[in-house]
Amino acid sequence: MDIKVVRQILEWNEDCSNEIKESLNRNKVCLINVMGSPGAGKTSLIIELIKKLKDKYNIAVVEGDIAGQIDAEKIDSLGISVVQLNTEGACHIEALSIRNILGYFDLEEIDIIFIENIGNLVCPAEFELGEDLKVAILSIPEGDDKTIKYPLLFSKADAVVLNKYDMMDYFEFGDEKVEKHLKTINSEAKIFRVSSKTGEGLNLLLNFIEDKVKTKLK
Amino acid sequence: MDIKVVRQILEWNEDCSNEIKESLNRNKVCLINVMGSPGAGKTSLIIELIKKLKDKYNIAVVEGDIAGQIDAEKIDSLGISVVQLNTEGACHIEALSIRNILGYFDLEEIDIIFIENIGNLVCPAEFELGEDLKVAILSIPEGDDKTIKYPLLFSKADAVVLNKYDMMDYFEFGDEKVEKHLKTINSEAKIFRVSSKTGEGLNLLLNFIEDKVKTKLK
Repeated sequence: MDIKVVRQILEWNEDCSNEIKESLNRNKVCLINVMGSPGAGKTSLIIELIKKLKDKYNIAVVEGDIAGQIDAEKIDSLGISVVQLNTEGACHIEALSIRNILGYFDLEEIDIIFIENIGNLVCPAEFELGEDLKVAILSIPEGDDKTIKYPLLFSKADAVVLNKYDMMDYFEFGDEKVEKHLKTINSEAKIFRVSSKTGEGLNLLLNFIEDKVKTKLK
Repeated sequence: MDIKVVRQILEWNEDCSNEIKESLNRNKVCLINVMGSPGAGKTSLIIELIKKLKDKYNIAVVEGDIAGQIDAEKIDSLGISVVQLNTEGACHIEALSIRNILGYFDLEEIDIIFIENIGNLVCPAEFELGEDLKVAILSIPEGDDKTIKYPLLFSKADAVVLNKYDMMDYFEFGDEKVEKHLKTINSEAKIFRVSSKTGEGLNLLLNFIEDKVKTKLK
C-alpha cells in the first residue's frame, strides 16, 4: 500500500522536476541542490560560495527548513534574494515546492539558484528538483562511514564536499577510505576537501561550480 | 491524499507500539530509543553505556541502518546480542519492525534493549516504538541551532545529550543557548554534557538511565 503511494508521489515529483528543468533551461538559470546532515555546514558553505560569486552572477537562494528562518536571515543579510521554505515536519523538499517558489524570482535576471535542502542524508536524495548540480556535504566530525551507511545521496552527487576539513587533526577520519568507497558507488563524483572557516579548498569547488554555471549560461 | 496515508501508518504504528509496551512491561524490559543525526555519535555512546552496564544487566541492541552492518559488528564484538535492522532506504524505524525483532530475543532474560535509530533528526521522532526512554543526541560540531530547526525530536526527548563535548573549544557552540531554547519546547528533558571519547559526563547520564531501568525492573 504505502509503496504504491510513494511511487505516485515520486512520479508526480518527476513531472514537476521536468517542468522546472524546462523553465530553467529557457531562462538560463543554474540550479544547485545542496544536501547534507544537520550541522554539516550547508549554510556556511553556501554563504562562502555566494561571497565569491555574487559580483559576477545574480544569485538567489531557497532555504529549506522544517521550522524557523535562521539561515534565510543570514542569506538576506548578504543582500541576496532568499525564500524560506518551511516544510513543517517534512524531511525533504519536493519539486512542487521549488516549482511554486520559482514564481517569486525574476528568472530572466537570475543566473544561479542555490537550494539548501533539509538537513538529512536520507530522504532528500529521493526527490529530483530539476537541479543542474547535486552537492553532497559530508563533514569530518560525522565520520568516514557515511557513504557506506547512506549510499543513495552520495551515489547521486555530482560533487562530494568533505567539509570542516580543518578538523582533520581532531577526528579519526579516513578521507582516502571515503574516496575509495565513493568510487564504488559513484565513479563520476568529484571530491573536494573544504573548510568554509579557513577557506581551504574552496576555490577548487568554486571552479567546478563556475564551469557548470558557464555552460548553462551559454 | 498523502496526509491521509501518513495518518494511517501512524495509527497502525501506535497499535504496534502499544503491543510492544505490553510485552516489555510483562517481561520487565527497559527499551531505550537513541536518536540523532548521522555521525552524532550514537553507536559510540551506546557502546560506552553498555561497557558500564553489562556486568549488572542483560543487554540487547537493535541496530537500525539504511544499509550495512558496521555498527552491529561493533556491538557484537562486545558479546552483546544484536539484531541489524536494515531499512533499505527508509529514513526511520517503525514499531512493526521492533515488534518483529523482539521475537529474536529472550525477553525473560533481558533487562535493557537499546535501539539505535537511523541517523536522522526528522522522521524517527514521528514513530513511537513502545520505548521507555527517548535519548536525543546533539553533537557539538552540528551547531547550537538544531533544537530550533528540528524541534519535534527534541520536544519528545527524555534526555538530550550534548555529545562530543570535548570539542567545545573548537566549535562555536552555545550550550546555554541550547538549554534555554530546549526549556521552551520541553521543560522535562534532562540535558547531559558528554564525551564518549574522554568519558566526561557519562556517569550522570548512566545514573539517569539506571534510575529508569531500576523502576522498570521492580
